[in-house]
Amino acid sequence: MLSVSRLQSSRLARSCLSRQPATRCDRRAASGFARFNWEDPFNLESLLTEEEIAIRDTAHQYCQENLLPRVLKGWRTEEIDHDILPEMGKLGLLGPTIQGYGCAGVSNVAYGLIAREIERVDSGYRSTASVQSSLVMHPVNEFGSEAQKEEYLPRLAKGELVGAFGLTEPNHGSDPAGMETTAEEVDGGFVLNGSKTWITNAPFADVFIIWARCKWDSKVRGFILDKGLKGLTAPAIKNKVALRASVTGSIFMDSVKVSHDALLSKSKGLGSPFSCLNSARFGISWGVMGALEDCIERTRAYALERHQFNRPLASFQLVQKKLVDAHTEVALGLQASLQVGRLKDEGKVAPEMISMVKRNNCGKALQHARIVLDILGGNASADEYHIGRHVANLQVTNTYEGTYDIHTLILGKAITGIPAFAN
Amino acid sequence: MLSVSRLQSSRLARSCLSRQPATRCDRRAASGFARFNWEDPFNLESLLTEEEIAIRDTAHQYCQENLLPRVLKGWRTEEIDHDILPEMGKLGLLGPTIQGYGCAGVSNVAYGLIAREIERVDSGYRSTASVQSSLVMHPVNEFGSEAQKEEYLPRLAKGELVGAFGLTEPNHGSDPAGMETTAEEVDGGFVLNGSKTWITNAPFADVFIIWARCKWDSKVRGFILDKGLKGLTAPAIKNKVALRASVTGSIFMDSVKVSHDALLSKSKGLGSPFSCLNSARFGISWGVMGALEDCIERTRAYALERHQFNRPLASFQLVQKKLVDAHTEVALGLQASLQVGRLKDEGKVAPEMISMVKRNNCGKALQHARIVLDILGGNASADEYHIGRHVANLQVTNTYEGTYDIHTLILGKAITGIPAFAN
Amino acid sequence: MLSVSRLQSSRLARSCLSRQPATRCDRRAASGFARFNWEDPFNLESLLTEEEIAIRDTAHQYCQENLLPRVLKGWRTEEIDHDILPEMGKLGLLGPTIQGYGCAGVSNVAYGLIAREIERVDSGYRSTASVQSSLVMHPVNEFGSEAQKEEYLPRLAKGELVGAFGLTEPNHGSDPAGMETTAEEVDGGFVLNGSKTWITNAPFADVFIIWARCKWDSKVRGFILDKGLKGLTAPAIKNKVALRASVTGSIFMDSVKVSHDALLSKSKGLGSPFSCLNSARFGISWGVMGALEDCIERTRAYALERHQFNRPLASFQLVQKKLVDAHTEVALGLQASLQVGRLKDEGKVAPEMISMVKRNNCGKALQHARIVLDILGGNASADEYHIGRHVANLQVTNTYEGTYDIHTLILGKAITGIPAFAN
Amino acid sequence: MLSVSRLQSSRLARSCLSRQPATRCDRRAASGFARFNWEDPFNLESLLTEEEIAIRDTAHQYCQENLLPRVLKGWRTEEIDHDILPEMGKLGLLGPTIQGYGCAGVSNVAYGLIAREIERVDSGYRSTASVQSSLVMHPVNEFGSEAQKEEYLPRLAKGELVGAFGLTEPNHGSDPAGMETTAEEVDGGFVLNGSKTWITNAPFADVFIIWARCKWDSKVRGFILDKGLKGLTAPAIKNKVALRASVTGSIFMDSVKVSHDALLSKSKGLGSPFSCLNSARFGISWGVMGALEDCIERTRAYALERHQFNRPLASFQLVQKKLVDAHTEVALGLQASLQVGRLKDEGKVAPEMISMVKRNNCGKALQHARIVLDILGGNASADEYHIGRHVANLQVTNTYEGTYDIHTLILGKAITGIPAFAN
Repeated sequence: MLSVSRLQSSRLARSCLSRQPATRCDRRAASGFARFNWEDPFNLESLLTEEEIAIRDTAHQYCQENLLPRVLKGWRTEEIDHDILPEMGKLGLLGPTIQGYGCAGVSNVAYGLIAREIERVDSGYRSTASVQSSLVMHPVNEFGSEAQKEEYLPRLAKGELVGAFGLTEPNHGSDPAGMETTAEEVDGGFVLNGSKTWITNAPFADVFIIWARCKWDSKVRGFILDKGLKGLTAPAIKNKVALRASVTGSIFMDSVKVSHDALLSKSKGLGSPFSCLNSARFGISWGVMGALEDCIERTRAYALERHQFNRPLASFQLVQKKLVDAHTEVALGLQASLQVGRLKDEGKVAPEMISMVKRNNCGKALQHARIVLDILGGNASADEYHIGRHVANLQVTNTYEGTYDIHTLILGKAITGIPAFAN
Repeated sequence: MLSVSRLQSSRLARSCLSRQPATRCDRRAASGFARFNWEDPFNLESLLTEEEIAIRDTAHQYCQENLLPRVLKGWRTEEIDHDILPEMGKLGLLGPTIQGYGCAGVSNVAYGLIAREIERVDSGYRSTASVQSSLVMHPVNEFGSEAQKEEYLPRLAKGELVGAFGLTEPNHGSDPAGMETTAEEVDGGFVLNGSKTWITNAPFADVFIIWARCKWDSKVRGFILDKGLKGLTAPAIKNKVALRASVTGSIFMDSVKVSHDALLSKSKGLGSPFSCLNSARFGISWGVMGALEDCIERTRAYALERHQFNRPLASFQLVQKKLVDAHTEVALGLQASLQVGRLKDEGKVAPEMISMVKRNNCGKALQHARIVLDILGGNASADEYHIGRHVANLQVTNTYEGTYDIHTLILGKAITGIPAFAN
Repeated sequence: MLSVSRLQSSRLARSCLSRQPATRCDRRAASGFARFNWEDPFNLESLLTEEEIAIRDTAHQYCQENLLPRVLKGWRTEEIDHDILPEMGKLGLLGPTIQGYGCAGVSNVAYGLIAREIERVDSGYRSTASVQSSLVMHPVNEFGSEAQKEEYLPRLAKGELVGAFGLTEPNHGSDPAGMETTAEEVDGGFVLNGSKTWITNAPFADVFIIWARCKWDSKVRGFILDKGLKGLTAPAIKNKVALRASVTGSIFMDSVKVSHDALLSKSKGLGSPFSCLNSARFGISWGVMGALEDCIERTRAYALERHQFNRPLASFQLVQKKLVDAHTEVALGLQASLQVGRLKDEGKVAPEMISMVKRNNCGKALQHARIVLDILGGNASADEYHIGRHVANLQVTNTYEGTYDIHTLILGKAITGIPAFAN
Repeated sequence: MLSVSRLQSSRLARSCLSRQPATRCDRRAASGFARFNWEDPFNLESLLTEEEIAIRDTAHQYCQENLLPRVLKGWRTEEIDHDILPEMGKLGLLGPTIQGYGCAGVSNVAYGLIAREIERVDSGYRSTASVQSSLVMHPVNEFGSEAQKEEYLPRLAKGELVGAFGLTEPNHGSDPAGMETTAEEVDGGFVLNGSKTWITNAPFADVFIIWARCKWDSKVRGFILDKGLKGLTAPAIKNKVALRASVTGSIFMDSVKVSHDALLSKSKGLGSPFSCLNSARFGISWGVMGALEDCIERTRAYALERHQFNRPLASFQLVQKKLVDAHTEVALGLQASLQVGRLKDEGKVAPEMISMVKRNNCGKALQHARIVLDILGGNASADEYHIGRHVANLQVTNTYEGTYDIHTLILGKAITGIPAFAN
């Protein structure tokens, strides 16, 4: 849980953006202009609350000091250190927008800032945390009974339990309406059958939120399944080319029997998992900006240090253009996500707004990470330079939780009134 | 001057964005989500003050009712109706951020909203107004004496006087430091020699703000020249392929003699004209978004009405993608300009922020106006469909007041610390 | 008609590509490498026959000496000099691939080279010639009776008669299958009713190839209509924003009665006008490369001459990139069109190949003409610099004779086997 | 060595492009059009000699049957099967353009076709072979003595010896003129000192072509170093994010003593290694087209099989566009490389032509492989689907042997006459 004293000390100790403290808020007297801080081009800082800044700084410090040193090993071995979620839990970074149940109860913007800091290290780590917060804790909180909340939320918030979210199926990615997993009511509960794939955290999850079509009324509902149930397996998918620092698996359910308590009783219809996805997508829109920021920061530093033709790469127009294009998109993307976050806090957000920032920020992050990668020349191939890893990861973030094209069509429908998904 | 009663009545009469009033702020009870208003995707409206909304609505109504009906004739004939600036003056739309001297004294955001509404009709009209406000009234207010302010500002604010801004020279566009126009001190005043080109409003301007290198100390300073001075001519440049609804010319100064009163005595160095450019660029960043919004709105309507293969064009995925891409960039660009405007109001803006929104918004407006133009098919060639005109205009907005590449290099310098202009 | 003696003298007098004669085919002895001729990067010249080179040179000389001086006036006034088609006819440039009937009977590649030279001056002039050759002479030759050929072809070849091609209708652009114009058999001939729009040459055409759905069997067939028929009118469409140097109009047919002789009796079904379109599209694929070459040549010269920051623009990396990208696409596009032309000569061409070069070359020409336009800075707006005109024109070439998207879907069907036009 | 009987039998057995034999060269009688073969859109086949087709088919069969089954293991383990080069050698695929010395002596186009077939499987395998042929055998043949040729070429051609090429240094990638490795003449030979990095094949190479600056005249010359020399080490670089199926290393030379025989005595100046690079770049321009073709073929098959919204992905306009764009660039790129190959065979090639096809084809292959990757949705992450691997590889091919930007500037210099490398 986020402790105030910890936040204060961390805030005193350092600020993630304070590397050039002299240049900030240092007005140019002569011209009436302020100095430009390239690391915060539109002065986003001035739009955050003290609390949000403190959370951001806590997350930044943790990620840089504790996640960054683990990421190369995780990437190379496709394994995740099981201490990570508990560590995050200790800092209050899991399910942070939930009120009560051991959660921090902070703003959606704060949640976005956390995602950004984690993904500044790796999209896989951010995925691991997003699933826990948006796809597991969120539906328990939103669609669960009081008993379910009390049973699961505090331990999920601490990272004692790891959650996974089973929606996508082998034959149904972009159109979950075609879901084949079923739940049937039987004596004493339900029986679930079906399979899910590309499920983050599944191989080491303790708790599975499974979406299934209920045979009695054909509606989709959510169920909480505990690890170890008979017929429930979750093998890992190995040899991924991206998100290798996080763990992904399938979920197979062969007549898995659960009691009536397993049902998320307030869930009904696809709107329920979509609510989870919208929460996750909002976080992703912040996260990918962090990844792109890391790409910019690292390639900028490289371009300043590396000389060719007796000049730093950073002095070449073609290199400056790459950095500037990327940098501009970060500035724009963050500003947009901030506004969507504020509207979310006020209950004024529309799903299409989230589609817009998810689609835009993921698309731009991927596009520009790829472009700045070229600044590294041959070193682009070395995983120690990190950008190739970000680039591979960002392709997935652009695809999961609604592909780029699906969000195009969601927005196309919003603009024209005409659904073109099946065109 | 902006009259409150007028604003109120106009506000009551209509809102430019209220075409779908039922859908706004209409919470979806079930899901906790709001309805999406595609015309205001990030709910910009909720971030504006009542006064700003009123000004926006006044400007919108004026532009749609009084500018739109004139634009085809202006474009075809390369002439501007000389009533336009006085009409704008009457509504308080000229030099609106200036305090006193008959000016409205409103926020920079309000200024941006005005530019957006004018450019929704035509970039040429917006250029005409931008020059008056940012490039003529601004330097008089910023660098002029009290006498100069009193003499010029009220009449410029009313549109009784038309102003022009002479900085660009035939041989010096992107590098004004190479300026060749000179001012020499002589008995009783100064003598100016040189030529300026691509000067908006010049052929019908009453007042010229001329930037010249002063022979006595090699510094650049501004001078106010009145029409009719001996040796001063401002012939029109005809047969333009863009901005045809506004009037452009050259300025030739052949030993033009002015009194000491003509000097803008607080101007010194290139920082002074740059201050004007930054004010104008900020307005452009809003204006071009208006032009792109008009392109989207018109091509969307066309795509809904026009059928091919027995279906509306708007139902095709390839058409939806064009609209969505453009629409997203408007949403992002406006959000960014809003933040820069707020920082400008607070005295916290840096010139690089303005470079960023000017460059991004102009570049994106041009790019996406070109893309949605294709939706019109063969009708793209007909000026009655308006988009071809916007496309031609936006190429100029992307180039003037700092080309796209120059702003790239301004930002590249800001990010890397290395100037690459002369690379 | 193409006279050999004329060709030889023109060839001796000059070669359009021989401006750097010393650098061509001048082997670098030391390395085994040849010298690079930037104006012909893949040595296209070495793949042309003597005859093709001669025709190209004749066309080049004519276009530069006789078309270029007229183009600004034509563009400004939206009028075409009626001497142009007869002049082209005299040189054998009209219907040049047709054997006999006073036509030159040269290769399809030669036809492409002619289109390239004309469009190097203006896409409107090339459109005027394309219509005459591919859309009027071609169908007469392909689908007409011997009597029709003898009556029309020689005079069309001389430019004594001007032709127009009426396929597109106000409500049917991309899907001509929806054609509403009808032909009904009546006593002594046929009666045609309907309207056509965006018809190049219509206002001054003597001969109209009209495609109509025949009421007796619902098939589309072609008819030759002479100017002056009762009920036939062809008013000009004015105030175009592109292709202003050529003349465009509508065709209205109000119970136009023609004799049985008017029917192109070998035409049947939409395959017939598509055959014409494929011929025209092939020529367009060459033509637009000429327009882009002119953009490159002019902006390159400008970039070498114009200095900013004390250096030629051409020395800036950002400028070199623009030129190189455009230049590469010309080299690739010409090579592709050459291969398609050779296959066409051998009877081995498929319509999809033509879709590919039409789509690619038009898309790339438009894209890169727009990019190099920016090199001109403010002068981009002046029609004397020509590039703005090319840019406006190329938007139309990218749209007419199958929009970019329609060719995408034609090729998509070819690749996947699935038609997605109506999606 | 390429044996005729083998070629014939392989040719009889299968053709790599004959999967749709019925559709090829099957003229459409009615229209005079041929049928379109999407796998060979411009009928490249008709431009190849019988011998070239035979070699292409041999290479195709070998690669599909012998390389494809090994590639996943190679990619996952970063190891290469040492039998691969000998197998290629047996088929005559190494140094194939060299006359004599056990080499096949075929055309440059044949060499390109081989590269395309290998890279259809993996860019790393193609790199392994390119180094052997263009960067090791080529300089021995071009700059070596008769004794050196006889000693090395036959065994390199058989793949009994593996070669590596040491040009790039840790501090000098794009500007090899800054080379720090030195050769000093000493009693009985030379002493070499320095280090090279990102050297394909280095860790298992038997022969190293090392470029060093000669202290006696400051010229760069090549030396042949045999594995096992004292002071010579070549450790592997591990944990690459691309080209993992090939082996890469550094080369360290700590006072490596060689006899006078080691000098490639006809080499002098940077032109010598550049000659090697031009040979390799030409092959790369073909190779990357093969990789992109594989991406198209696989994602097309996936899009036909995978259904969402009850329709195959291949029926969606947004998917068709991705395939069509990629497909067009393959068609164009191959046509261009063919022409450059023909000119190379005739001794008429210029290095800038090779820069153009290397830059264009690599850039387009990378761009479009990334785009079609998205068709796979979540499966893009699974290495079994192969495209993610191609995408990662193609980033390197776009960077090595002259980065994209360096080739931009080579061509920019060719077009403008102005070198902008150091800008």
